[in-house]
Amino acid sequence: MDFRTWMKVTQDNCEEALSEFIPQSDIAPRRLHEAMRYAALDGGKRVRPLLVFAAGQLFNAPDELLRRAAVAVEMIHAYSLVHDDMPCMDDDALRRGKPTVHVKYDEATALLVGDALQSQAFIVLSEGNGDALTKLAMVRLLAQASGSVGMCGGQAIDLASVGLALSRDQLEQMHRLKTGALLRASVLLGAMSGKTLTATEVAALNVYSAAIGLAFQVVDDILDATADSATLGKTAGKDAADNKPTYVSLLGLTASKELATQLCNDAHQALVPFGTQAHYLHDLADLIVQRQA
Amino acid sequence: MDFRTWMKVTQDNCEEALSEFIPQSDIAPRRLHEAMRYAALDGGKRVRPLLVFAAGQLFNAPDELLRRAAVAVEMIHAYSLVHDDMPCMDDDALRRGKPTVHVKYDEATALLVGDALQSQAFIVLSEGNGDALTKLAMVRLLAQASGSVGMCGGQAIDLASVGLALSRDQLEQMHRLKTGALLRASVLLGAMSGKTLTATEVAALNVYSAAIGLAFQVVDDILDATADSATLGKTAGKDAADNKPTYVSLLGLTASKELATQLCNDAHQALVPFGTQAHYLHDLADLIVQRQA
Repeated sequence: MDFRTWMKVTQDNCEEALSEFIPQSDIAPRRLHEAMRYAALDGGKRVRPLLVFAAGQLFNAPDELLRRAAVAVEMIHAYSLVHDDMPCMDDDALRRGKPTVHVKYDEATALLVGDALQSQAFIVLSEGNGDALTKLAMVRLLAQASGSVGMCGGQAIDLASVGLALSRDQLEQMHRLKTGALLRASVLLGAMSGKTLTATEVAALNVYSAAIGLAFQVVDDILDATADSATLGKTAGKDAADNKPTYVSLLGLTASKELATQLCNDAHQALVPFGTQAHYLHDLADLIVQRQA
Repeated sequence: MDFRTWMKVTQDNCEEALSEFIPQSDIAPRRLHEAMRYAALDGGKRVRPLLVFAAGQLFNAPDELLRRAAVAVEMIHAYSLVHDDMPCMDDDALRRGKPTVHVKYDEATALLVGDALQSQAFIVLSEGNGDALTKLAMVRLLAQASGSVGMCGGQAIDLASVGLALSRDQLEQMHRLKTGALLRASVLLGAMSGKTLTATEVAALNVYSAAIGLAFQVVDDILDATADSATLGKTAGKDAADNKPTYVSLLGLTASKELATQLCNDAHQALVPFGTQAHYLHDLADLIVQRQA
């Protein structure tokens, strides 16, 4: 299957799985379930699910486990967006071209939607078929990537860094946690759905993940500085307006673009040991760097 | 060991385990870890951990697994208090006799503390020794009890019910989710740490859990109406001030006290099949009904 077709099929599969694994809006409490579905369904590029499925391809992982892993990681991502957008955090009104959850509903509901989506991720990952040892390792990995030394920790560093002149190392460390941890988890969850990974395999996938994770952020910063809100589906120019450190403010636009290209090459290199089975991961690195939104 | 001694030993054990399982405040991001420790340590009656250990006693469960289960469930409880106290929810300034997390730190930190404590619960439960199938089932149970058809769902119903005249059934359903689900999870997590439970054992423990869960809430309502803030360590009379439905407002004080006593008897009855091994669970039912704060 060519990359574009695979991507569409996988995104549709993920959307269907998300709809299946978030309680329907006619189940009580209805408003909460409706808001959870509003937050997670019908939007987003599904980069993390794509990484799960692409990495699953490396070792012919079973589809059911990949679906659960993809949905779980996307629920964590969706919950983090809902909480990030709240007034006490980034105070953003627009997300994926729609009003954010606290604008559409209210702040208390947004808080609960995020909380319940996090729980739901662990429900989805711990239910269903599959080897218990593998699934427990997947729960552990996702929880670590989400928590205080993962995504939440990155958010905390981000909060503390507003208005500060971060060094490039500090900026990288912040993003390694804030977005990198969950992207890495996506890749590893996909791969470990297929087999127990060797240390060498984990090391190679870590290099790939670190490169695309950083590239993702560099491109985000480039787009925030150059694209308009309509294209992004969220408020553009927000980082600069909030006086947040970005790669563009640190390195300039040209050097940021060069860095993104270099990171894409690093990601491709890390995949060489996996041969042709890694072609979707290869193409996803290109996609992350070339995306326009 | 007599009940009071056992309780003190178990509370100390739990405090020590919480301190061990929440990253130290010299680990980055320091402020987040300091705030997580502030939220979870040095306070609270530790009712849920006590239930975990008391239920573990039924089947001689190994101490390490009980410690992890107790800490995990207490982290979920602690996170829910941090988020509940936030301005967009109950807007409370006092908890366990100390300023709430958003007052002591700030709202964004409180949001992240809650989020990270939830992740940490699943880290703790999925790490360490023990049978993978059992541990995966424990993760599943805790996630279900925490999510949209558990604790978060109860919060959502609570939010939606402010100012409404709830029937007794509706009030019970709300509390069954809001506090009952996590109390039930505590009992089952403790018991399943010792052995794979039969349907009969689960059914009996469900009856016990439902009775103490409801008793817990009835007593909460009685205390909110009768005790002062200094004794409670949180703002008293808040439910009435917020126009929230309570058992006292629905049944009156005398009938509420009778209901609490009846529920305590129901809980004791449910334990009969477990014989003398259930004595800590028996005494905990008494404690829940007789507590003054």
